[in-house]
Amino acid sequence: MTARAGKATQETLIRRLTEDWAKALRARDLDGMMANYAPDIQVFGIAPPLKYKGLEAHRKQWEQRFASLQGPIGYESRDLSISAADDMAFSHHLDRIIGTMKNGETMNSWVRVTVCYRKIDHEWKITHEHVSVPFDMETGKAALDLEP
Amino acid sequence: MTARAGKATQETLIRRLTEDWAKALRARDLDGMMANYAPDIQVFGIAPPLKYKGLEAHRKQWEQRFASLQGPIGYESRDLSISAADDMAFSHHLDRIIGTMKNGETMNSWVRVTVCYRKIDHEWKITHEHVSVPFDMETGKAALDLEP
Repeated sequence: MTARAGKATQETLIRRLTEDWAKALRARDLDGMMANYAPDIQVFGIAPPLKYKGLEAHRKQWEQRFASLQGPIGYESRDLSISAADDMAFSHHLDRIIGTMKNGETMNSWVRVTVCYRKIDHEWKITHEHVSVPFDMETGKAALDLEP
Repeated sequence: MTARAGKATQETLIRRLTEDWAKALRARDLDGMMANYAPDIQVFGIAPPLKYKGLEAHRKQWEQRFASLQGPIGYESRDLSISAADDMAFSHHLDRIIGTMKNGETMNSWVRVTVCYRKIDHEWKITHEHVSVPFDMETGKAALDLEP
């Protein structure tokens, strides 16, 4: 296998992981989502704290997210860019999760997502995830209505 | 050179790039800062838009930032984690830029920073940068007073 073919293969595997994650999200399949993360995942999440660490904390965060949403969960992703070496990769993209909160409000803001991966025991795992929206420096408000 | 030594060397180079960037920031040395970025850098910045691309846009953003700050610029960074392969790397850390805005307000919020690198013509360059603060989902306000 040439180096170029190897690189393309790793990118394909990362792309598949991204698709598996999205499929699990739409199905509210928490185990399926968590299967993609390393045990010591370090997360810069959309809400406080500044950072948290570990699969258990990440699972809890998603449990709360699912609990706050009623009915079906939609998911859209665009501008996916993947860079992959043999055992290390990163990707970034814009995502939006579309749903209805328990309080009746609609959730459909675009967020920025950067994901870092390591190959652990021959399997790609997410070791770091950074999800955010920018904020308006004048008002101090999160910019939740931006379109890509 | 063993693979382990090679990896350690790349991490050292990334660490040096991070230090060079910080030194340039403190000195308001825009050229010095920009020397670390790839021409097609893709940025998820702290303020809108969702994303922007290219060295020129990034330079302009920092010009505006410097223009908005009076006097000396302080910089503090912690929890630096670097993962490096031969020609690809990523890092993440918590940063705060400490300064006084032209309107008299103090700037000293902690932000989360994720940085992705590629080796281009034998030199490490930043190809993607994601800087953010989390926001409070109840109030919609950016969380600017969090401590690590």
